[in-house]
Amino acid sequence: MKLATVSHEGATLPVALDPERGQMTPLGVGSMLEWIQASSAGGAKAPAGQPLALTGARLLAPLVPPRNIFCVGKNYREHAREFAQSGFEAGAVQGAEIDAFPAVFTKPASCIVGPDDPVDLHAGVTSMVDYEVELAVIIGRGGRDISRARAFDHIFGYTIINDVTARDRQRNHKQWFLGKALDGFCPMGPWIVTRDEIDAENVEVSCWVNGELRQHANTRDLIFDIPGLIETLSAGMTLLPGDIISTGTPAGVGIGLKPPRFLQSGDVVRMSIQGIGELSNRFK
Amino acid sequence: MKLATVSHEGATLPVALDPERGQMTPLGVGSMLEWIQASSAGGAKAPAGQPLALTGARLLAPLVPPRNIFCVGKNYREHAREFAQSGFEAGAVQGAEIDAFPAVFTKPASCIVGPDDPVDLHAGVTSMVDYEVELAVIIGRGGRDISRARAFDHIFGYTIINDVTARDRQRNHKQWFLGKALDGFCPMGPWIVTRDEIDAENVEVSCWVNGELRQHANTRDLIFDIPGLIETLSAGMTLLPGDIISTGTPAGVGIGLKPPRFLQSGDVVRMSIQGIGELSNRFK
Repeated sequence: MKLATVSHEGATLPVALDPERGQMTPLGVGSMLEWIQASSAGGAKAPAGQPLALTGARLLAPLVPPRNIFCVGKNYREHAREFAQSGFEAGAVQGAEIDAFPAVFTKPASCIVGPDDPVDLHAGVTSMVDYEVELAVIIGRGGRDISRARAFDHIFGYTIINDVTARDRQRNHKQWFLGKALDGFCPMGPWIVTRDEIDAENVEVSCWVNGELRQHANTRDLIFDIPGLIETLSAGMTLLPGDIISTGTPAGVGIGLKPPRFLQSGDVVRMSIQGIGELSNRFK
Repeated sequence: MKLATVSHEGATLPVALDPERGQMTPLGVGSMLEWIQASSAGGAKAPAGQPLALTGARLLAPLVPPRNIFCVGKNYREHAREFAQSGFEAGAVQGAEIDAFPAVFTKPASCIVGPDDPVDLHAGVTSMVDYEVELAVIIGRGGRDISRARAFDHIFGYTIINDVTARDRQRNHKQWFLGKALDGFCPMGPWIVTRDEIDAENVEVSCWVNGELRQHANTRDLIFDIPGLIETLSAGMTLLPGDIISTGTPAGVGIGLKPPRFLQSGDVVRMSIQGIGELSNRFK
């Protein structure tokens, strides 16, 4: 099932999408978070409202999570190498580009924007804005100390995140939060696909800047795989329904190019993940 | 004014405290966050309810913030040195212990506990739990691109945070989130003092373990001062009413001792900040 949050006749509506028929069915709750909480508690029913035409609805970010998004750094081998070699990774050690443990930082929900929303380059704060396409895992049933074997039982679905990054701030402040948290720096969408729709461990992930292919990989190449990330994150920390884990980006970001190429005003970054859809945003 | 959140006759009440008279006055709102939001919008009135006796009320953490707590690392010189020399700082460079820019990471609100609450040592996840006393700044009026000169206008008040840390996870995962976010790892309290009550740039900060003084410093020794932190954090990122900035810990943490000493079951960590009060928690 595809689930979206849309703006429709002045209201914000969580809906189930039927793109083939050009229809959407309201979920009858106030927010997607509420729907996920109810589903994970066994209380969500199938959407049963009257279908509406998709015409006139605008897609918003599908979900505002209950707290900061968990983001994984350096989770594809080629990207870990390009990052270490770029000079933008504080404390990078030659020959030790691949970490033994996943690096996890957060992005606040306040930086989430929707499909097609413009993203501010924050010219006064950074001159080095970069894109990162990532598969985002959405937690359904919460829990602590979740084993690898049970990890998929706790997944509600998936979406796409652009983990937009101010490389200068990421480098200067060493801990990555300040380079990752600027207003607008988390485009998300276009919708959520529920867990049953895709084999998330084997989907193609791609990113284009102004039509030029920059990133292309498959999630089977993740260094720390999805069950492992859920096991690590939930060790001693209770995961909540609606939590989002952004699983890291493949090689091909702007700092990986020689010379590096940062986003400029007017650039359009388009991302695609197989079985989910496309997310596109213009930078201004 | 001292503001607390208490458990009283089965209800959770935000109150104004009058410790001298042994009284508290309910603020008449559902949560401390609601009070801060209303104050910062000019809508909070003085507490005008009937005073209640403090007897029988139990202090809870004074505030659940609207998103993860912002935490500053390595913000006192002696602590920056002890951390770099301890071997627990990934990427530490000898001779460059003091950073040119503040390191900022986050702790989720889910790890907040109150005064006197027990804190789990999470034996299966970490064997290296450490304490960190910190002055926490609570934002009142939100805003973006706040200048140093206007920073104090955006402060609602202050409290104490114990930035409990799993040193093994902090070291292994390089980014510090996973070492900082375990359930219970953010004791907070005992209450909030409003901005006018203290000169936060000149207060004594202390921490005892089982009665032994371990940390003692003054906030005038912060490397990145409070106005500077607000300027840096709000650059491109809108601060919200109720946001919390934990300003970093002084020297004397467990990994700074030779040999390092980690917290053990039964240890009591007591913290004090001049003009605020005391926060004490037993580890189990």
